[in-house]
Amino acid sequence: MNAIKQEGKKSKLQVFDQLESEVRTYCRSFKTVFAKGSNAKLVDRDNREYIDFFAGAGALNYGHNNKRIRSKLVEYLLQDGITHSLDMATEAKEKFLLTFQNTILEPRGMKYKVMFPGPTGTNSVESALKIARKVTGRTNVVCFTNAFHGMSLGSLAATGNAYKRGGSGVPLTGTTFMPYDGYLGPLVDTTSLLEKMILDSGSGLDLPAAVILETLQGEGGLNGASDKWLRNLERICREHGILLIVDDVQMGCGRTGTFFSFEKSGIRPDIVCLSKSIGGYGLPMAITLLRPEHDIWNPGEHNGTFRGNNLGFVAATEALHYWSNDELEKQIDAHAKTISAFLNRMASRYSGKISEIRGKGLIQGLVFKNPEEASKLCGVCFDKGLIMETSGPSDEVAKLMPPLTIEASVLKEGLNKLEAALQQLFAPAKPGELLQTKSS
Amino acid sequence: MNAIKQEGKKSKLQVFDQLESEVRTYCRSFKTVFAKGSNAKLVDRDNREYIDFFAGAGALNYGHNNKRIRSKLVEYLLQDGITHSLDMATEAKEKFLLTFQNTILEPRGMKYKVMFPGPTGTNSVESALKIARKVTGRTNVVCFTNAFHGMSLGSLAATGNAYKRGGSGVPLTGTTFMPYDGYLGPLVDTTSLLEKMILDSGSGLDLPAAVILETLQGEGGLNGASDKWLRNLERICREHGILLIVDDVQMGCGRTGTFFSFEKSGIRPDIVCLSKSIGGYGLPMAITLLRPEHDIWNPGEHNGTFRGNNLGFVAATEALHYWSNDELEKQIDAHAKTISAFLNRMASRYSGKISEIRGKGLIQGLVFKNPEEASKLCGVCFDKGLIMETSGPSDEVAKLMPPLTIEASVLKEGLNKLEAALQQLFAPAKPGELLQTKSS
Amino acid sequence: MNAIKQEGKKSKLQVFDQLESEVRTYCRSFKTVFAKGSNAKLVDRDNREYIDFFAGAGALNYGHNNKRIRSKLVEYLLQDGITHSLDMATEAKEKFLLTFQNTILEPRGMKYKVMFPGPTGTNSVESALKIARKVTGRTNVVCFTNAFHGMSLGSLAATGNAYKRGGSGVPLTGTTFMPYDGYLGPLVDTTSLLEKMILDSGSGLDLPAAVILETLQGEGGLNGASDKWLRNLERICREHGILLIVDDVQMGCGRTGTFFSFEKSGIRPDIVCLSKSIGGYGLPMAITLLRPEHDIWNPGEHNGTFRGNNLGFVAATEALHYWSNDELEKQIDAHAKTISAFLNRMASRYSGKISEIRGKGLIQGLVFKNPEEASKLCGVCFDKGLIMETSGPSDEVAKLMPPLTIEASVLKEGLNKLEAALQQLFAPAKPGELLQTKSS
Amino acid sequence: MNAIKQEGKKSKLQVFDQLESEVRTYCRSFKTVFAKGSNAKLVDRDNREYIDFFAGAGALNYGHNNKRIRSKLVEYLLQDGITHSLDMATEAKEKFLLTFQNTILEPRGMKYKVMFPGPTGTNSVESALKIARKVTGRTNVVCFTNAFHGMSLGSLAATGNAYKRGGSGVPLTGTTFMPYDGYLGPLVDTTSLLEKMILDSGSGLDLPAAVILETLQGEGGLNGASDKWLRNLERICREHGILLIVDDVQMGCGRTGTFFSFEKSGIRPDIVCLSKSIGGYGLPMAITLLRPEHDIWNPGEHNGTFRGNNLGFVAATEALHYWSNDELEKQIDAHAKTISAFLNRMASRYSGKISEIRGKGLIQGLVFKNPEEASKLCGVCFDKGLIMETSGPSDEVAKLMPPLTIEASVLKEGLNKLEAALQQLFAPAKPGELLQTKSS
Repeated sequence: MNAIKQEGKKSKLQVFDQLESEVRTYCRSFKTVFAKGSNAKLVDRDNREYIDFFAGAGALNYGHNNKRIRSKLVEYLLQDGITHSLDMATEAKEKFLLTFQNTILEPRGMKYKVMFPGPTGTNSVESALKIARKVTGRTNVVCFTNAFHGMSLGSLAATGNAYKRGGSGVPLTGTTFMPYDGYLGPLVDTTSLLEKMILDSGSGLDLPAAVILETLQGEGGLNGASDKWLRNLERICREHGILLIVDDVQMGCGRTGTFFSFEKSGIRPDIVCLSKSIGGYGLPMAITLLRPEHDIWNPGEHNGTFRGNNLGFVAATEALHYWSNDELEKQIDAHAKTISAFLNRMASRYSGKISEIRGKGLIQGLVFKNPEEASKLCGVCFDKGLIMETSGPSDEVAKLMPPLTIEASVLKEGLNKLEAALQQLFAPAKPGELLQTKSS
Repeated sequence: MNAIKQEGKKSKLQVFDQLESEVRTYCRSFKTVFAKGSNAKLVDRDNREYIDFFAGAGALNYGHNNKRIRSKLVEYLLQDGITHSLDMATEAKEKFLLTFQNTILEPRGMKYKVMFPGPTGTNSVESALKIARKVTGRTNVVCFTNAFHGMSLGSLAATGNAYKRGGSGVPLTGTTFMPYDGYLGPLVDTTSLLEKMILDSGSGLDLPAAVILETLQGEGGLNGASDKWLRNLERICREHGILLIVDDVQMGCGRTGTFFSFEKSGIRPDIVCLSKSIGGYGLPMAITLLRPEHDIWNPGEHNGTFRGNNLGFVAATEALHYWSNDELEKQIDAHAKTISAFLNRMASRYSGKISEIRGKGLIQGLVFKNPEEASKLCGVCFDKGLIMETSGPSDEVAKLMPPLTIEASVLKEGLNKLEAALQQLFAPAKPGELLQTKSS
Repeated sequence: MNAIKQEGKKSKLQVFDQLESEVRTYCRSFKTVFAKGSNAKLVDRDNREYIDFFAGAGALNYGHNNKRIRSKLVEYLLQDGITHSLDMATEAKEKFLLTFQNTILEPRGMKYKVMFPGPTGTNSVESALKIARKVTGRTNVVCFTNAFHGMSLGSLAATGNAYKRGGSGVPLTGTTFMPYDGYLGPLVDTTSLLEKMILDSGSGLDLPAAVILETLQGEGGLNGASDKWLRNLERICREHGILLIVDDVQMGCGRTGTFFSFEKSGIRPDIVCLSKSIGGYGLPMAITLLRPEHDIWNPGEHNGTFRGNNLGFVAATEALHYWSNDELEKQIDAHAKTISAFLNRMASRYSGKISEIRGKGLIQGLVFKNPEEASKLCGVCFDKGLIMETSGPSDEVAKLMPPLTIEASVLKEGLNKLEAALQQLFAPAKPGELLQTKSS
Repeated sequence: MNAIKQEGKKSKLQVFDQLESEVRTYCRSFKTVFAKGSNAKLVDRDNREYIDFFAGAGALNYGHNNKRIRSKLVEYLLQDGITHSLDMATEAKEKFLLTFQNTILEPRGMKYKVMFPGPTGTNSVESALKIARKVTGRTNVVCFTNAFHGMSLGSLAATGNAYKRGGSGVPLTGTTFMPYDGYLGPLVDTTSLLEKMILDSGSGLDLPAAVILETLQGEGGLNGASDKWLRNLERICREHGILLIVDDVQMGCGRTGTFFSFEKSGIRPDIVCLSKSIGGYGLPMAITLLRPEHDIWNPGEHNGTFRGNNLGFVAATEALHYWSNDELEKQIDAHAKTISAFLNRMASRYSGKISEIRGKGLIQGLVFKNPEEASKLCGVCFDKGLIMETSGPSDEVAKLMPPLTIEASVLKEGLNKLEAALQQLFAPAKPGELLQTKSS
């Protein structure tokens, strides 16, 4: 392979095609080289602009290059602040811990110890599974149909997607899948199956150490759990000494309207996993929240080189100020209503194509009767300058998840693009135009 | 728990003691709050200065807040460069890919596809194990005594440390441990046991998908593999269709004297894991190098939110310029000789205490006959303003791993502190001095 | 421990108490030393007679010391017939193979190869799981709540009972439990959950190699699967290339009224496990039936020392003659009706105590609202000279499973004892008698 | 498939070829249908006589149809003795327990509880692994290269043979293989590797619950452990609270010269597995011996339908009388010397072909430099009326294991046949003889 030069290449993505692994995926859908970003807008190398309804899969709740946060980062860099510290104590980490305590936990009456498990969601989930097994002395963990918890072996065992699971090359053990809320239709409370199998000593369900769940399954197709179902689940856990883990990696940090996705339900998990937007600026960071009585780790029993990403702490601290009053929550709510109203209009306009609207807050989506049309729609959107992705086991849901900080006008602009894309896809042309197309 | 205020606290680390999980560890050895860093020096909140012989466990090969790299980061931030991109194509990523190809792979005659598996070493190892299992259709992976490969479940199964393994709470499967080079004494080439068990269809060793190893075991006690042993291992792998994985997370990026730790041995691994210092500035980043014929991933079969940490790409690209000529290599070599000479002097001075010198390049250490004395030494060093850590299964090795970019004078200063610490520990004072001490 | 002598011991079971492991169980319920047996009657050392409604847990369908079979055994022994042959060819084995083919398979239009997997049910199940995994190249096996398949590690993983599972001391892997027919009430066809999870690529259910089930769960509490449910299950298996395994170890050989328990349902399993009464005389023997297209074993890939128990073959061959006409089937049917009628009478008499009658053919039972009363009942029965056992996850079912060959008069006698035991337990005495009892 | 009739079939083994699974193996080597047996002689359907140097793979230590035992069996059958009893108490079982205590355990100063785990060796091994894991609360079990412990999933995980392991279709977990005595040459005591890995907390060896071994590996190629090695192993186990399990299924009951194979070494295992010849007459039976302090089973925590095979108890009881004096031991010793002398002669005569003699007592064998010649030899032997089998990972050992009760004259006759077979194989004929053979 000769040295590759940027000049004269045939494809925009030639460098990636030649040098990067076949595992790459989003760059196959969004075929351009991005250069800059600002809140909900991206610009590619050719100065084409895009509205971002994907938000880094939930890692960019505060938008691209949030200016408030950036000024703190630059300031910190220029004053020689510690960047990488493993789990040594630093001023930046101390500030984060205090701000998180005072802005998030204390006002919500929550008591959790904060663990830094490494900078990714899957690190957090791995740490949660470990401590749950240590606390209970048991190994089995109940997870749910269409769950997504990560790609390292422990988290992957709790992830439902067959394609991702198959990538492991080994049987995945230590977990039991149960039907998520709504899996057996609206009339069945699926916690009853779990409870029956726990109570029945002949059921084959090994008494779990923990139950892990997302309150709304982002990758799994925007399936949401009702507050009642969550409370039933919590009750079952309490009655049997099972730890309740909420993986709020994607749904936390305001995505569903409140900082934690489970606030309105009233449940109080034993362990909460946060990552993605906790780092504020798209910087790798994760924390695991543990009820103090479960914090029985020995020092260093779990560790990781990048658990002290201080740029993340600096950005996270600044981002938490969004939660010092209710302005952001109100804005999310307003945006969410705009999106809901829009999606309802689209769903009734294309009722033959769209079966359902799912999600809440700033993660909502359209479920297509023919899954392929969700992907096609996202392709058309991209051509129109709108970035959207699918989710669900058959990629049947077209998902809207803009930054929480998106301007109302940009949101509107994005929805207009989406409306146009739907129009193009499902009502592409009048007879005369069709004729024209054929003859061209 | 009431809101904690920074004022009036009794301990320097009160905030951490109260709010952070018990799993924290290094802050228990280095009991201060760090504030700033510059190349090999750290400064704490009280303006006390420390020389850093730990270098972020190998993540800071180019020092703290490397100025060349920092200016690129600040520039990138201020121009609204994309920070977080999943695996979409960005200009920053393209530059990294090209620079890595042109500066590292091409000059060494290496052909590898670059995979971005998520930003940590354990992400890279997990991806390596997955693809090795996929390529071969087999599940077992041979690893070695005292190996360290990470904390997520797949990597942990290949990690020797009983304490870390115990943290998993489940039996760890899919791996077989074999004795590392030197484990059975200098006369036994331990690859012969591996080879015998592979050839013997009754040995109980399931034919492995891969062998994974560090060429020098950083966490395991600075045990090094000889070039001959490495070549034997490669030969065995080739003869039996087993993939050879080098985990160069800690030993790569120049730590042992060359960019890859295995360059001088002549082996050509099938898969190479890089993280820690690949991110240049202590920023979370990892890559997995795959021989093109093994790059049979399907798109998205392994993924991760932070595999597109563009600040990491920017920093990494700039850091790679250190490898465009041989200046850094020469400096590493010079520093390494300084350290070797120093350690040899110490080992002969305290021959009753020190059993051995281990390591090479800028990772060398003293092995103590009484393991506790290694920890005590590091404690005394910290009091004198030198940061050093232990390694090995009994923490019996006191380890020197300064930034590669450390100034000769600072290196000398650090060694002086170490010499003084040894003096204090083993020949603390003459009778008169003792008296003096007592009376003070 | 001094040599123990039979004379002068204090307890009937002193030898067992002192020399046998604590794992012993039935001898704790039936506290006597049995000496002789004849069809459905047992006699203990003290010449006390018992009617046997337990039939060796289904291994004695043709009664104790069946005279037709015994004469063949004695004849074979006296003529120096081969007793133990591994899997060498013997005349006795050839006769068994031919008789099984001509008496059982051929008349039912069944085509199966016969495998001798070792002499126990769990050997047969282990072999079935192995070949199913080999045929499909997959590992997961679906089994059902309250299933019992055996005590060796592979079979135990498919067994629901928490107490038995806990005995393994390791996490049991490779299986997924689904709700058995009726588990979610009479209105839910539980195959729909299985089908949904198979069709949903995000369900977390790894596509199974096989489904294994008992058509009526003997140990699990006499839960029976309807023919419709079985046919649905078979259809799902066929549609997804999943092998269907019926474990007919306890329910086969006529227990439910036909030779195979599934005959009336019309399903045609890929693999059938037989043991217990296949050996005719209570002799250890098991066979695994494989559809010819699945018989892809390599020679000796599964083996076992006692897979050639020729006394078993001799006894089995003679026992199969019971199936050369429909006399036995008619007798089972008549006995089954007698039992059903009796149990219905009891259930209505003690409707406050008995919640349900379960089972069919010559395995039927009473379900007690208070599980402890099932055990108490069996204790009272034993005192009255009737041997009965409980089953179910809470031992809540008192089970009747006499030899198929029981004489009508002995069956009647046994039912009378059971009626008396129920009377004693639930309506123990009239006021006058109570007074009498108290004063005694 | 039409009903098959015995008449007119083309192959002796047609019935087996058509009706029995492809897994059958010994009938492929010994292509005839056996009819009768008496001590060390077998007769086939065509009245051809064979000398048996295989003894049911060690299940027929007292020969075929041992007359002393048979008369007890027939007597028991005719008096309506209980045949099948699960684990109820019977007179036959009581007699066995007392006889085993008084004849075997008491005279050797051994204190063990007797467990009946089901009637096969693998049942016994499964029970041993379970109780060891329960006693220690640990999961890992150390086993050895070329070990054979059984075919059910738990035992198979401790079996070295790749072909057998592959049959499982799943990764086998919970065991670690270490080199057996002699595996690294005569100069290395391989227990030192085990000890080093146990002592080294970084070795990756999870502290085992138990070590399981055969003192002489019958299936693995007649590798024997020295008494010193066994004592070292026992010492290591004691020092680390690891249970020592001897699988004496094949080597027990006198095969190596003493009742237990380990008697001369002086070790005292925590658990001993016995099967094969414990049943006396080739009848399925197994026991697990447990030190009383380890007998912490709960009732029924392990069970099995055929753990009460009373014909086995009757035969076993009678067989134990062979151990009430030292006659049998003396006879074994004499036969063993005859065999050793013979094999030494052969090994020096064919020193270019035979590399080694292995084994002791009445299990000895010739190791062939070219493994195929071991199989060829057994084929030639069969043609000459001698039944012998190979063992070892490459089937490179031709194994002699006649019944212990073989008459001296029959042993001599067998050795003559073997000598002739070697002659035919390696020095088949001079030219003149060849001519003669051709013309005959």
